[in-house]
Amino acid sequence: MLVDLKKEQILNIGVVGLGLIGGSLSKALKKYTSHNVYGCDIDPDTIQAAFNAGAIDFSIEDGDFSMCDLVFIALYPQKAVEFVKAHSNRLKENAIVMDLCGIKRYVVKELSPLAEENHFIYVGGHPMAGKESWGFQDTDGDLFRGASMIITPSDQTPVWVLDLLIGLFADIRFKTVNRTTPESHDSMIAFTSQLAHVVSSSYIKSPRALAHNGFSAGSYKDLTRVAKLNPNMWTELFLENKDYLTEEIDTIVAHLLEYKQAISTNNYDSLYTLLAKGSEIKEGLDK
Amino acid sequence: MLVDLKKEQILNIGVVGLGLIGGSLSKALKKYTSHNVYGCDIDPDTIQAAFNAGAIDFSIEDGDFSMCDLVFIALYPQKAVEFVKAHSNRLKENAIVMDLCGIKRYVVKELSPLAEENHFIYVGGHPMAGKESWGFQDTDGDLFRGASMIITPSDQTPVWVLDLLIGLFADIRFKTVNRTTPESHDSMIAFTSQLAHVVSSSYIKSPRALAHNGFSAGSYKDLTRVAKLNPNMWTELFLENKDYLTEEIDTIVAHLLEYKQAISTNNYDSLYTLLAKGSEIKEGLDK
Repeated sequence: MLVDLKKEQILNIGVVGLGLIGGSLSKALKKYTSHNVYGCDIDPDTIQAAFNAGAIDFSIEDGDFSMCDLVFIALYPQKAVEFVKAHSNRLKENAIVMDLCGIKRYVVKELSPLAEENHFIYVGGHPMAGKESWGFQDTDGDLFRGASMIITPSDQTPVWVLDLLIGLFADIRFKTVNRTTPESHDSMIAFTSQLAHVVSSSYIKSPRALAHNGFSAGSYKDLTRVAKLNPNMWTELFLENKDYLTEEIDTIVAHLLEYKQAISTNNYDSLYTLLAKGSEIKEGLDK
Repeated sequence: MLVDLKKEQILNIGVVGLGLIGGSLSKALKKYTSHNVYGCDIDPDTIQAAFNAGAIDFSIEDGDFSMCDLVFIALYPQKAVEFVKAHSNRLKENAIVMDLCGIKRYVVKELSPLAEENHFIYVGGHPMAGKESWGFQDTDGDLFRGASMIITPSDQTPVWVLDLLIGLFADIRFKTVNRTTPESHDSMIAFTSQLAHVVSSSYIKSPRALAHNGFSAGSYKDLTRVAKLNPNMWTELFLENKDYLTEEIDTIVAHLLEYKQAISTNNYDSLYTLLAKGSEIKEGLDK
């Protein structure tokens, strides 16, 4: 197996789900590597569009992934788990399977035992890249340029697998590959990504939103950008990260109420301290 | 007076306070118009820097603004009011005075009677442009390019004054000039700008902020950009817009808690509806 999968070799890579992430991944693989890409999607029009765009070399319609050295699953978490469960007996021995879901505890817990049982190698992944739009029509072979790729290998993941994946992600222009645990991933993502979407979606619901035309500066635009989102995907992701995300919502609400308290009591010193502290933290993090 | 202040004529324009807004305004006036700019700042080094950058033609150090047809006051609200009070007897008859403060009710209420008493013409203004940095070193003659300029004239403001101001703001590359009341301005700004700064400053205070390196995508960057802010200025602005701003904080907190409720009770339909509605509002506003 080691010999078959050396980085220098041309791999057969399956990509399941040709939406924003899977479609962009396919395009990036074709743009920056020499590997063969086998695409799979429930929508025949999407498969055709992917062929037309040169994003895939072959399509897999019969569920037979036995030719693939590596399969990326770019579906929503529950569908990803269902898909691998349904096809795990059609995978090559020691094939690498990586899901690209935005939460990791649930998926890793479901897929890890399956991998052991069926002799494939599973590693969780999450590309930290996205857009306010989705579907193959918005895919971009440079979506991952400069982004972070997060992977959640186990202690048993062979070193050659990590080497292969890290090399591949560098090839398609990720800036960094960060290795962490599913727990740590879900905890951090609750803050950096999920909370941002909850806050942005809440922000836009002020009655004043509808009348703000001509009054908006960059700060409004930034705060509300990700309010435009894919509600199917985010609903599932939020529910599968309930504990960490509700903790983050509680945290920001508590902080917002501190500012409100200082403002409503005209407490200049307290408000100044809150703002100065926030500015100091932000400046420190940007360094 | 009408004759003296025709748009085609070269005006003598005073700019009081050469920080980010006043300094950028001076640079824009020198870059895009032929008017003379008289700068005024408490810091001699700033005056010197403004001369060196070609942002001002003359400096006013003795408080005599009698040569100015138009004076912009680019100070924090309380200082702006104090400054105009102290110098209102050194203004030319029918000179136009415009403050550039981020809140309007307080300033307009203080300066309007003073204008009548001292025979100058006061109009409130607020350029919807800014940066996360401040001071003359960060000024930019193109800071206002594409931005909205908000003005709050009264029913008594002469038409020639509006024509002159609107022409001048177009010259220095504002995209639009919006006329509104001080009340409406303060209400809208609470939502579009002040709340954005409160939320961003609150966001960055999560304990997870310090450990997020490698996990941040664009959404985190957008949500926290304006956490870096000038605490002196924003503390004053928030306290002078207490009613509208606390109302906006209450509104977003109530919405955040709706999302939390849906998440913590695993209510897929409710969470989906909240997210879909937010996305729909945002998409509608962007059209």
